[in-house]
Amino acid sequence: MTQPLKGITVLEFSQYLAGPYAGLRLADLGARVIKIERPGSGDACRNLATKDLWVDGDSLLFHTINRNKESFCADLKNPGDLAAVRQLIRQADVMTHNFRPGVMEKIGLDYTSVQAINPRIIYGEVSGYGNEGPWVHKPGQDLLAQAVSGLGWLSGNRDQGPVPLGLAIADMLCGTHLAQGVLAALVRRQRATKYSGNYSVNKGAEGIEAGNTGAKVQVSLLESMIDFQFEGLTTYLNNGQQSPSRSEIANAHTFLGAPYGIYQTKDHWIAISMGPLGPLAEALACPALNRNDIDKEAFSQRDTIKATLAEHLRTQSTDYWMQRLNAAAIWASEVVDYDTLLQHPAFKAVAMELQVSRSAQNAHGNEVTVTTTRCPLQINGQRFTSHRAAPVLGADTAHIRQTLLAKQEVAQ
Amino acid sequence: MTQPLKGITVLEFSQYLAGPYAGLRLADLGARVIKIERPGSGDACRNLATKDLWVDGDSLLFHTINRNKESFCADLKNPGDLAAVRQLIRQADVMTHNFRPGVMEKIGLDYTSVQAINPRIIYGEVSGYGNEGPWVHKPGQDLLAQAVSGLGWLSGNRDQGPVPLGLAIADMLCGTHLAQGVLAALVRRQRATKYSGNYSVNKGAEGIEAGNTGAKVQVSLLESMIDFQFEGLTTYLNNGQQSPSRSEIANAHTFLGAPYGIYQTKDHWIAISMGPLGPLAEALACPALNRNDIDKEAFSQRDTIKATLAEHLRTQSTDYWMQRLNAAAIWASEVVDYDTLLQHPAFKAVAMELQVSRSAQNAHGNEVTVTTTRCPLQINGQRFTSHRAAPVLGADTAHIRQTLLAKQEVAQ
Repeated sequence: MTQPLKGITVLEFSQYLAGPYAGLRLADLGARVIKIERPGSGDACRNLATKDLWVDGDSLLFHTINRNKESFCADLKNPGDLAAVRQLIRQADVMTHNFRPGVMEKIGLDYTSVQAINPRIIYGEVSGYGNEGPWVHKPGQDLLAQAVSGLGWLSGNRDQGPVPLGLAIADMLCGTHLAQGVLAALVRRQRATKYSGNYSVNKGAEGIEAGNTGAKVQVSLLESMIDFQFEGLTTYLNNGQQSPSRSEIANAHTFLGAPYGIYQTKDHWIAISMGPLGPLAEALACPALNRNDIDKEAFSQRDTIKATLAEHLRTQSTDYWMQRLNAAAIWASEVVDYDTLLQHPAFKAVAMELQVSRSAQNAHGNEVTVTTTRCPLQINGQRFTSHRAAPVLGADTAHIRQTLLAKQEVAQ
Repeated sequence: MTQPLKGITVLEFSQYLAGPYAGLRLADLGARVIKIERPGSGDACRNLATKDLWVDGDSLLFHTINRNKESFCADLKNPGDLAAVRQLIRQADVMTHNFRPGVMEKIGLDYTSVQAINPRIIYGEVSGYGNEGPWVHKPGQDLLAQAVSGLGWLSGNRDQGPVPLGLAIADMLCGTHLAQGVLAALVRRQRATKYSGNYSVNKGAEGIEAGNTGAKVQVSLLESMIDFQFEGLTTYLNNGQQSPSRSEIANAHTFLGAPYGIYQTKDHWIAISMGPLGPLAEALACPALNRNDIDKEAFSQRDTIKATLAEHLRTQSTDYWMQRLNAAAIWASEVVDYDTLLQHPAFKAVAMELQVSRSAQNAHGNEVTVTTTRCPLQINGQRFTSHRAAPVLGADTAHIRQTLLAKQEVAQ
């Protein structure tokens, strides 16, 4: 199967995680993604190491986010470089950036300016908190976006302070939303250009506009975090503005009653999902919870019920309980860590591991390999598994100048 | 602006959250999303209440996930109903389901059977853990997907057990991936049908196949959770398989050093993001951390540094510290809860609140309004804000029978 985005070219001015995570998905799906990077330093993520891990001069983090992309160096303050970038924009389908409000205007690569060069381009813009309001100049960083969106009050137990998620969730959700918006705008552009009434159900009645069919797609960390909490926020907005309250023990969802949570056993941990308490008490041989009316108290008395359950589960091993729970078809699972997961046949079955390599032809002249994970979706049974690693800074500048730029007169 | 997916019809056989969250986004973007529901009970989420909250006979949770959709009742075991559904499939662009492996085959609505009716359809399939391997029959539920993917070991402090995220993160990520895959397949289908070399950079060299251009898109909770942890897993895979280790206090990212975390102040909480420790110590007037070489210890000595910082921050209020941190342009933020967020001008500025209503014309005959949140992305400055609420079960059955089905001979 031809990859769905084969032939689509994306210029990625984005740095760090949110924008480049969108670019990674577009690359997975077949797009040619060219990072436009500052000479010398490039995407700031090249120099942001987690756990002080580096591969071939770039942080392992950069490698993770930027596999399967090209790198073109351009100093946007240099008129010659800027002209070259404008020529690339003329030929591109998509561009993304996450500069702070005002920066692209100053450079002359804001959407209005870019439209004049290429009216068909899809222009993706990532901000921290939108383009107006008191947080416009607040740093658009993941932990801060978590902090201002209320997320920390949903995890951990009631006696804890706010517990952030130990991963860049705002960046990643925002990146997925950017990819959705870009893809939707590509669908719209194609239909606007070549609409012929093939959409059967509402055939011909759509009024899809013709002509200038590019689009500007805007996402922000804040809006993505609000969307992510749509359950909790809708509950808050329709329930007398009562803030979510975590359970005292085994909290796993502020709006769900017992048994929903993770519990310690004699030797490890066990997760028990939603379900009636009677059959659970039966399966676990826990008479204290085997009362007729207990399900009516599942939410209101969740702390007491969870405490009883916790005490009971500590008396036997995870295996012991899982056998009983599986036999009763109760929704539960052992809790695993990376050591167990990555050796597990179920992990092997989804074949998520992916090896990527920098070729010997790169500027550094050495072959390096990184093991990472692949695109999480399949189309027609195909897993998208390009083995191309993240680019050396500027690795593709010369080739792009000789091909995409040589063919055209460079207009200032 | 015409919505990008205007004229696209989606049949949603999916229930609960992952599939319907994808359907919600497609509806936001302009698609007509018709839920195909079992007579009598419908999507099981109608009866899954969080916090025991109900609106007009359905759970508030169902309302949150299914606004702006239609409902068509069909018993897939009844030959007449099944024939009607096949007729809808013939006219649809997309269908999604999250039945367990084998169920759609039994009904005769697996991808191969559906292709025979409509070769152009995009067929989206959500599973818990893929279609092979030892977890195929494990319940595809969010907390269990968190439990088996290692996520719990990233949040909370080191002395805690696994701390799940208090929201259905696996479902929501998987839904975003499904939406991405469906959108990419729509792009591919349009190009396959009407490819005319308009893709400038690689013009004409793509070999996009013509003809049968539908596609099957497959996602799973497990693969989405693995992708979400690509930073941590790539680190594990390239760093001698060392499991992530949470910091003793103020943990917020297992691979980042001090000061990254959330700290208690005299009156509340404060989040401090990444950045050099010297300027931070200066801004906070904390001499114990103002040493020349301290940044070299930011990761290796993070527990000691964080403990010093935590003790220091407890001595003054959040406002006091934020003034100093802002003056020094250090990445930090107050931590807010829903009460503060929803009253904040920054929340008002992004206008995420959305009111949706069930009209007086519905089967229940009464007007009900729910306040929820809108689609997180904007295209051409347009926020997608349909005010149509989640449908009453079967609300659109008669209308769809009179329009989409009346026009065509119903083939068995």
